[in-house]
Amino acid sequence: MKHRYLENLPLPQAKDRFFGRLRDVGFEARTEAVDTVQACGRITAKAVYAAICAPHYNASAMDGVAVNAAVTFGASEKTPLTLTPADYIVVDTGDPLPDGTDAVIMVEDLIDAPDGCYTILAAVRPWQNVRQVGEDICMGDMIAPCGTVLTPALCGALLAGGVTTVDVLKKPVVGIIPTGDEIVAPTATPAKGDIIEFNSTVFRGMLEGWDADVRVFPITKDDKALLRAVLEEALSRCDMVLVSAGSSAGRDDYTSEIIASLGTVLVHGIAIKPGKPAVLGEARQKPVIGLPGYPVSAIVVMEEIVRETVDLYYARTPKAPQIVEGVLAKQIVSSLKYTEYVRVSLGKIGDTLSVSPLPRGAGVISSFTKADGMLVIDQNCEGLLAGERVQVRLLCDPAAIEQTLIVTGSHDPLIDEVRDLLKKSGAAFRVNSTHVGSMGAIYAVKGGLAHLGGIHLLDTETGVYNKSYVKKYFPDGGAALVKGVGRVQGLMVKKGNPCGIRSFADVARVRYVNRQRGAGTRILCDYLLQKNGIAPQDVDGYDNEEFTHTGVAALIAAGNADTGLGILSAAKIYDLDFIPICTEVYEFLVDEQYLDDPMVQAFFAVLRSEECRSRLEAMGGYLLEEEATC
Amino acid sequence: MKHRYLENLPLPQAKDRFFGRLRDVGFEARTEAVDTVQACGRITAKAVYAAICAPHYNASAMDGVAVNAAVTFGASEKTPLTLTPADYIVVDTGDPLPDGTDAVIMVEDLIDAPDGCYTILAAVRPWQNVRQVGEDICMGDMIAPCGTVLTPALCGALLAGGVTTVDVLKKPVVGIIPTGDEIVAPTATPAKGDIIEFNSTVFRGMLEGWDADVRVFPITKDDKALLRAVLEEALSRCDMVLVSAGSSAGRDDYTSEIIASLGTVLVHGIAIKPGKPAVLGEARQKPVIGLPGYPVSAIVVMEEIVRETVDLYYARTPKAPQIVEGVLAKQIVSSLKYTEYVRVSLGKIGDTLSVSPLPRGAGVISSFTKADGMLVIDQNCEGLLAGERVQVRLLCDPAAIEQTLIVTGSHDPLIDEVRDLLKKSGAAFRVNSTHVGSMGAIYAVKGGLAHLGGIHLLDTETGVYNKSYVKKYFPDGGAALVKGVGRVQGLMVKKGNPCGIRSFADVARVRYVNRQRGAGTRILCDYLLQKNGIAPQDVDGYDNEEFTHTGVAALIAAGNADTGLGILSAAKIYDLDFIPICTEVYEFLVDEQYLDDPMVQAFFAVLRSEECRSRLEAMGGYLLEEEATC
Repeated sequence: MKHRYLENLPLPQAKDRFFGRLRDVGFEARTEAVDTVQACGRITAKAVYAAICAPHYNASAMDGVAVNAAVTFGASEKTPLTLTPADYIVVDTGDPLPDGTDAVIMVEDLIDAPDGCYTILAAVRPWQNVRQVGEDICMGDMIAPCGTVLTPALCGALLAGGVTTVDVLKKPVVGIIPTGDEIVAPTATPAKGDIIEFNSTVFRGMLEGWDADVRVFPITKDDKALLRAVLEEALSRCDMVLVSAGSSAGRDDYTSEIIASLGTVLVHGIAIKPGKPAVLGEARQKPVIGLPGYPVSAIVVMEEIVRETVDLYYARTPKAPQIVEGVLAKQIVSSLKYTEYVRVSLGKIGDTLSVSPLPRGAGVISSFTKADGMLVIDQNCEGLLAGERVQVRLLCDPAAIEQTLIVTGSHDPLIDEVRDLLKKSGAAFRVNSTHVGSMGAIYAVKGGLAHLGGIHLLDTETGVYNKSYVKKYFPDGGAALVKGVGRVQGLMVKKGNPCGIRSFADVARVRYVNRQRGAGTRILCDYLLQKNGIAPQDVDGYDNEEFTHTGVAALIAAGNADTGLGILSAAKIYDLDFIPICTEVYEFLVDEQYLDDPMVQAFFAVLRSEECRSRLEAMGGYLLEEEATC
Repeated sequence: MKHRYLENLPLPQAKDRFFGRLRDVGFEARTEAVDTVQACGRITAKAVYAAICAPHYNASAMDGVAVNAAVTFGASEKTPLTLTPADYIVVDTGDPLPDGTDAVIMVEDLIDAPDGCYTILAAVRPWQNVRQVGEDICMGDMIAPCGTVLTPALCGALLAGGVTTVDVLKKPVVGIIPTGDEIVAPTATPAKGDIIEFNSTVFRGMLEGWDADVRVFPITKDDKALLRAVLEEALSRCDMVLVSAGSSAGRDDYTSEIIASLGTVLVHGIAIKPGKPAVLGEARQKPVIGLPGYPVSAIVVMEEIVRETVDLYYARTPKAPQIVEGVLAKQIVSSLKYTEYVRVSLGKIGDTLSVSPLPRGAGVISSFTKADGMLVIDQNCEGLLAGERVQVRLLCDPAAIEQTLIVTGSHDPLIDEVRDLLKKSGAAFRVNSTHVGSMGAIYAVKGGLAHLGGIHLLDTETGVYNKSYVKKYFPDGGAALVKGVGRVQGLMVKKGNPCGIRSFADVARVRYVNRQRGAGTRILCDYLLQKNGIAPQDVDGYDNEEFTHTGVAALIAAGNADTGLGILSAAKIYDLDFIPICTEVYEFLVDEQYLDDPMVQAFFAVLRSEECRSRLEAMGGYLLEEEATC
């Protein structure tokens, strides 16, 4: 087995090398003529001039009568003047001004007189109430310079100016080739080892947002001849090609070799994380980009390289990211080997913009679904401290950040249900929820980084939940406990309980899966171990940590562990058996200054609603009135 | 002829009445299932939960060998350990972990040994380099609540979670019925009296931006029975219907009557300007909106009413407009009868956001093409003063405002050409140009409202252009004159010069069209009148004012006037004859502090480029080295 090393080229050099070559080979948009009525959103290829005036004739601007203004001169309240039918012609708004007339008297200003006459009390000036030729647009005027994005109003102006077809930049056709022996089309029931091909859907959505047309080629196996044939086909049909996966240097990573066989590999390996194993090449005067298989890596390369490739095609200035400054909620360690891209969620707490790093794994597409921004950490930076002021590239609507309820703490699916019910009720704010465990909730609320947090912290000396922790961490007050739910914690085991687990003491003889440090369930585990006289090091799997109840359940269902502590609803989803251990008090810690915040109030109103209650009942394991029994 | 009066209902009441009824009749989105790969941009109809875990099996996170971690325990640099082929199985990234293994050793950490063995210098922990089941997404986890716009990443997460179809809100189908006897489909050669139908293109573009599907019905004549039939057809096929034009109370305005015959007219006439003659109705439990025929009026009603109707359909919170504060460049008088909507262009001059009102006519679609923002003037406000701080609703990218070169002053098509050439050269900034005349340029530069302005101001005492004006208005310096062009001014007349005009003195005996006060060409006209001993009041049409050279040319071509002063290029566009009068010096007044501004420098670099020179030569009448001869 051989291992090859990639380059580790800093991003700016990688861009220079790649985009320099693309410029050299004349990579740019062609022009096509489209019907103006279909041109909205397109980009003009050259300046567009009005072909006719708008209006193109002298038009009445009002409903009324057209006259020669001269016949009205002298009319006033004191010297009314009467127009005979020979003096006027009735016109509606938009009618051409009849020959011999040069003004319009509004219908409101006409007083009926006998024999079809009208009396008027004021004169009109020449061209009064007339839209003269060219009032809006004059023939020959430039309506839009080249490179203009055609808005609806611009399309209207073009049509008004007699421009019925317009030369626009042809959209680039971007071919996407998903590759890999293990890759299968999206399915709800993939076989073991099958990887669902979703990257092309992500890329397509991004590319269409950048004004590209997308053609997704069939999934292609890791076969050099096949891959080469598909790439040649794609190059003949597209303006640029993305090869998804196979961009690294493993046994079946052929992207680089195949690009080299058809053109030139300019860069293989960029000093960014995630996203390092990218290939930037050129073949047939077209860009060919090998994207990493891991979705988050690929998205970073899409944002950093592919987006700018499309901009280069259109010869448009890359859109500068909107930058916001906030306070980092959690320390981040970073490598000196790479520029690092950390997805973050954002929310405003009081006057502070709180910046919470999301999970950093390259395979964790879910982290992107929650990302409000991207923190870019310079290659020369070893890390950032909690509380540090940081600049973040915005990925969401800035207005949304102002209207965000930040809920953190212990994982419980009920928070997602409340979030859904709030949306359903038409709440004008959003809920950002993260799982940092019960202790994390205390630190976040204390640090002003969350409005509220779910906690279930057992005082192992008194057996009472939460209260003593609040007393300890908020000795001067400032935080309130708001009633949440009682919930049953228990040991989840495979259907039929194959290991015959009866009580917590049995965890010492099977493979356990634990929760992360700071989680209320972890504290409960430690308490139960102590109570049963079991040392943590004697528990197989004590260091195998998951962040959520469903995460624990998933590992038991998969056979990675035999049991773990969690809540009934998680066990039910995975069809696991459940051995109840205790009922605990899951409450919400709220910064007192936000108790009256309308978002916080709405959150609790929904939590106490009938609909939420019935959802919790359906999920099972919640006790809406119960006290703890541990 | 009868005149009916409309209501003048304040906008909030109009909305309450209209949206209240729509809520009462249950106007809301239906649900449809779509393939997740096609769902990008759609809105979830209900919460979506993961159907499977991602990964759905324990997968190798690296290229390397899978092992049972226990066999590696004890390996270190001091105590290397050798794995026999029985101890490992080769895996690539993404491969399922073989039975009996629970960790992966990276290829980089394997040292080749004889007989297919590998030596390792470190142990691996159980589950090290393994993506355990559910690492990214756990089955049963809520991936998105209802009402979520599906981003590319969310679509990826849904597919990863085994969700191959997703319930989304059906897009509303909005029918547009263009009406009017005088309306014709877009054409480059409309007959006199024909009005080009471009409003539906504008509406379609706006609606598609609000996530609606659009169906444009054929242009329908002002015939009650016909209109009623088309509206019935539209109601049967669409979720809401817009009737374009005929919404007022004139002879052929049937919209209100026809809506009433099929349902209920809730509002007819809103206290907004432009946009007053709108009809808001309901028929067959669907909204029917009569839009004014004037495009600007219609766009305001689209923004204020139709957009929110679509939001109501989707049950989404209307997007709050982004508000910026700036300084008003010009006084605005407003009526107490209406809330007024004034389009403005925006640009940053130093630290000041300059807000320039655009032409306010309801028929002036071109004003919307230049609009960066909308100034909403309260009904109770009689006007706003120049220099007043105002709040503006943003209609453009806020970043664009920071990168705007503001050019104002005398109208000359060369500014548009420079603007186009700058775009073509890939300039990262935009040019906002307005025509306020040469004197307007002086006031704007002096007031810090423009970077530079084109002027051609004749000192009638010395015959020298521009210099004395700069001296007078900038007695303490602060503004520089930068060389522009010489250009020939002359009298434009119809082909063949039917009125036999020979010199400027002839304007006294024909119909003249003038330029607006403050225009350099107006000052030239006044100078020439004085020189020829002609009193302004003796010039027929002296008060008929246009803002541009092409505007003057258009009126001469249309026969509204016999002659007017202007430049050769305008005469050529309209195929007019041109009687040269003098050559003048068109220069640029620049606020000295911006002389080194890269945008200003780029502007002049392009102005002096070969390409610009050849364009000016093609246009005719420009003298690139000449001095004035007046």
